Amino acid sequence: MTPSAILLVSCPDAKGEVASIADFVYRHGGNILHADEHADADSGLFLMRVEFDPKDFDVDLAQKDLADFRKHFSPIAERFKMNWRLALSSRRPRMIIFVSRYDHCLVDLLYRHQSGELACEIPLIISNHPDNQRIADFYKVPYSVVSITKENKQEAENKIESLIQGYRADFMVLARYMQIFSSDFVNRYPQRIINIHHGFLPAFMGAKPYHQAFERGVKLIGATSHYVTEVLDDGPIIEQDVVRVSHRDTVEDLIRKGRDLEQVVLSRAVRLHVENRILLYGNKTVVF
Amino acid sequence: MTPSAILLVSCPDAKGEVASIADFVYRHGGNILHADEHADADSGLFLMRVEFDPKDFDVDLAQKDLADFRKHFSPIAERFKMNWRLALSSRRPRMIIFVSRYDHCLVDLLYRHQSGELACEIPLIISNHPDNQRIADFYKVPYSVVSITKENKQEAENKIESLIQGYRADFMVLARYMQIFSSDFVNRYPQRIINIHHGFLPAFMGAKPYHQAFERGVKLIGATSHYVTEVLDDGPIIEQDVVRVSHRDTVEDLIRKGRDLEQVVLSRAVRLHVENRILLYGNKTVVF
Amino acid sequence: MTPSAILLVSCPDAKGEVASIADFVYRHGGNILHADEHADADSGLFLMRVEFDPKDFDVDLAQKDLADFRKHFSPIAERFKMNWRLALSSRRPRMIIFVSRYDHCLVDLLYRHQSGELACEIPLIISNHPDNQRIADFYKVPYSVVSITKENKQEAENKIESLIQGYRADFMVLARYMQIFSSDFVNRYPQRIINIHHGFLPAFMGAKPYHQAFERGVKLIGATSHYVTEVLDDGPIIEQDVVRVSHRDTVEDLIRKGRDLEQVVLSRAVRLHVENRILLYGNKTVVF
Amino acid sequence: MTPSAILLVSCPDAKGEVASIADFVYRHGGNILHADEHADADSGLFLMRVEFDPKDFDVDLAQKDLADFRKHFSPIAERFKMNWRLALSSRRPRMIIFVSRYDHCLVDLLYRHQSGELACEIPLIISNHPDNQRIADFYKVPYSVVSITKENKQEAENKIESLIQGYRADFMVLARYMQIFSSDFVNRYPQRIINIHHGFLPAFMGAKPYHQAFERGVKLIGATSHYVTEVLDDGPIIEQDVVRVSHRDTVEDLIRKGRDLEQVVLSRAVRLHVENRILLYGNKTVVF
Repeated sequence: MTPSAILLVSCPDAKGEVASIADFVYRHGGNILHADEHADADSGLFLMRVEFDPKDFDVDLAQKDLADFRKHFSPIAERFKMNWRLALSSRRPRMIIFVSRYDHCLVDLLYRHQSGELACEIPLIISNHPDNQRIADFYKVPYSVVSITKENKQEAENKIESLIQGYRADFMVLARYMQIFSSDFVNRYPQRIINIHHGFLPAFMGAKPYHQAFERGVKLIGATSHYVTEVLDDGPIIEQDVVRVSHRDTVEDLIRKGRDLEQVVLSRAVRLHVENRILLYGNKTVVF
Repeated sequence: MTPSAILLVSCPDAKGEVASIADFVYRHGGNILHADEHADADSGLFLMRVEFDPKDFDVDLAQKDLADFRKHFSPIAERFKMNWRLALSSRRPRMIIFVSRYDHCLVDLLYRHQSGELACEIPLIISNHPDNQRIADFYKVPYSVVSITKENKQEAENKIESLIQGYRADFMVLARYMQIFSSDFVNRYPQRIINIHHGFLPAFMGAKPYHQAFERGVKLIGATSHYVTEVLDDGPIIEQDVVRVSHRDTVEDLIRKGRDLEQVVLSRAVRLHVENRILLYGNKTVVF
Repeated sequence: MTPSAILLVSCPDAKGEVASIADFVYRHGGNILHADEHADADSGLFLMRVEFDPKDFDVDLAQKDLADFRKHFSPIAERFKMNWRLALSSRRPRMIIFVSRYDHCLVDLLYRHQSGELACEIPLIISNHPDNQRIADFYKVPYSVVSITKENKQEAENKIESLIQGYRADFMVLARYMQIFSSDFVNRYPQRIINIHHGFLPAFMGAKPYHQAFERGVKLIGATSHYVTEVLDDGPIIEQDVVRVSHRDTVEDLIRKGRDLEQVVLSRAVRLHVENRILLYGNKTVVF
Repeated sequence: MTPSAILLVSCPDAKGEVASIADFVYRHGGNILHADEHADADSGLFLMRVEFDPKDFDVDLAQKDLADFRKHFSPIAERFKMNWRLALSSRRPRMIIFVSRYDHCLVDLLYRHQSGELACEIPLIISNHPDNQRIADFYKVPYSVVSITKENKQEAENKIESLIQGYRADFMVLARYMQIFSSDFVNRYPQRIINIHHGFLPAFMGAKPYHQAFERGVKLIGATSHYVTEVLDDGPIIEQDVVRVSHRDTVEDLIRKGRDLEQVVLSRAVRLHVENRILLYGNKTVVF
């Protein structure tokens, strides 16, 4: 894989934005590999993702906090009031996986990571149960048990935060993690916590979505991966998929079929996040 | 298509039901073409659909109210406390289509009917608007306009009922009909009114589901066909399907993509109903 | 719908292409609405589609043969050895539909066109059978019968060509047209004849694909829309889709299920063509 | 899971078959849990699968070679010229997995097995490479390396056969096993070797199907699980599925997306086989 640089931009829609960005990359010797943009008519927002080959780029991308890039790109950013971020594919983001007892999403993410499908590091797994230690050992990933009870929730979240800092995590994935974080905690990590919900949101919010789906007699069940926000199961949706079910399927069958869905939907969402393909506008995602 | 007889049964689950029914058909000279059954563990209900070739059947199926069949089958039905119904494929059910201004589901049903996909009669189209007269004319189906306002609702429903009776309709299809019938009306036609909802129920109940889906930023939109019951959008689901959407799709795109979904989902539901493949248990359907 | 201009480009991959094009549009007062590009590593080809709002564009797009645009864009085009084409959404392309006896794709295209889904004109329907005249009449489209036999093939193709010229058609759609054009004819209209094949190409090439699929016992059947080239069923694929089948489905069921597929796949392909979203590289399509 | 007995029958279609079988089960105290049948018009074949609760069944199912059942069922079997087989869910079939270097299907099957999704035993993994020993160890399954070269093929197959016998395997799964067995070998195990082909058969038979698909520019790629027969990639198809691809996908992307497909399709096929849901007629499968 060629190393690449990815520039993500969102700003009020205005003429000349594509030209200014493309020209900037070109003028400095970058070769655009992919460019995607979207103008959202409702919000008047312009969103863009440009991936370029930085081999001959004459701006120093190795400086701390991208100081050199910042200096050169500022005039454009200020002119168009851009929110922007530059990611380097050579700098693999660090992902902490949270898991409880259900291990299928954990196993799937670890396997895909080992196969080279996910261009990130996995420095740590955090769980509220010791059960999945053996899997972590097989994949040689440290496994930290942080028990959470009603009583020690604040304390537990503090401990989790210090782990996140200690392991310099860039984002977190809740791989069927059965705990709900406090608003305070969640708000500290905007667009940095990915969850998998085992229902086709916004149907079947909350607990036991497969049981809800069974009761309602739906003909398709779904899974939804989304960023976690303060409101439960209401964050920006990254990816969804469904699978057909029938009267022949018991709740147990729905759970089994759902496992495949959850793995596929969550791993797609993680991959999109790792490849810096997701931009937010309001409570929605643009997936480039 | 060979003419066939279809026996639909639901009763408390008990030993010997399949054997008794299969033996009954066999003993009287029928040849079973398809047999499907389902035992629902939760409700302890047994449901069965048996389709047989009545060519050499020695029970007279031509008698009024199936008197001869009733006489012969009663012992079995009573022994197992069966609810049952016998349908003859030679007797094509009569379907009235209800439509408002959107014509895509109407056009689709009429086209499929003409192609021979739907083994029913369409004696009448009822609409609260005159707009679709021309389509009805093309397909040579009578078209009756019954205006409905808040004020004349009771009167309009009376008129509709007399049309249903006059045209001896067996069931009704709401092909994007934008009126809500009263509970009284609905309760008179259990499992006899099929609706198409342009959302993936139970998500996006009520009005403007595509706008709701757009707002929520879902990655799939759906359509749901269900029997109409007293509670809006809550009746037993017959069929559902979804299609992928993205940030590129405007509300108008969702509406356009949704039209294809609505047609396909509604026509599948109508076909299943016409072929006597749907049994109810509680608020759910078994689709054989 | 805002009128837009669409610039389609393909050329050898080189640095500065996105920047040059974006800058050109911007410098002349255009506002980029969508931009998509693709660099094909194997062939070293760069392909781009830029859609822009020409409201304030200072190049005259109304001139014959786009003379003014050509003059201004030539330097860039020559520098990068670009093949290019400019399309204006205000200039709706003219599509002739070819049909034989099966009418489902014809009916579907005409309905979608009338609903406003397809931004093209339909000046003519050509058929080798008189059967579908009534449908053409309903949609008020002229219907021309050109019989084709082994003996008169050359003559018939001449007649068809003069109709294509007379009606100033931009492209042709074979909506289950059961005749095979000569290589000479086909080669005269590169990327201008769209066909629907009722099989999942390259499986089931040639005649009676549903019968072939039935014989092979596949669990999914498909349909493929492609540009017609000299080699039968081998042209660049535009769109494909599949639907699940089982042992319960007879050949007739495959044909019925396939009709829905064919309509959806063909209409998507036509829509993509009409919106100038398809570029060729080798025998493959890029669909933006 | 309640233990159950599954009777699989295929015979010439004739009146009274469903009744005779259902009556037989009932008369002996069995309770039918599921019954499925299919009459194939073309071949005049009747196929049936009956699953019943043997709790109160008065025929001894524990006897060697089902002698008691055989005795009681013979009159019916002879009358209708039935091929039949009785399987007991309590007797879990023994599956040997064959694998080469690609480990994704192996890992997936082992994980599902451990999760309880697959009601079989896995007494052995056979590979022509030592690479996947570590995975076998993690799941505590013996792993036997049998190298195959052009020269030692006969000898290697002999060795494999003795392993199959020694481990009393009921069926074999080729989980991306990159060796082709001889006709002799294959013919010894009819309907007992399941393969996963990474293409949508019958398209892309033979080697490197993803490369073939990429070359052809298809918009969907597929995977096919089938029973192995003498003719390569031509055996009865058990299950197929597809996933959408585009010009953005490189061959590597197809391979990655294909892995998910292969796992899902193969594991569904194995599950159907283990649950005795597959019957053959000609070169096709009925999947109940």
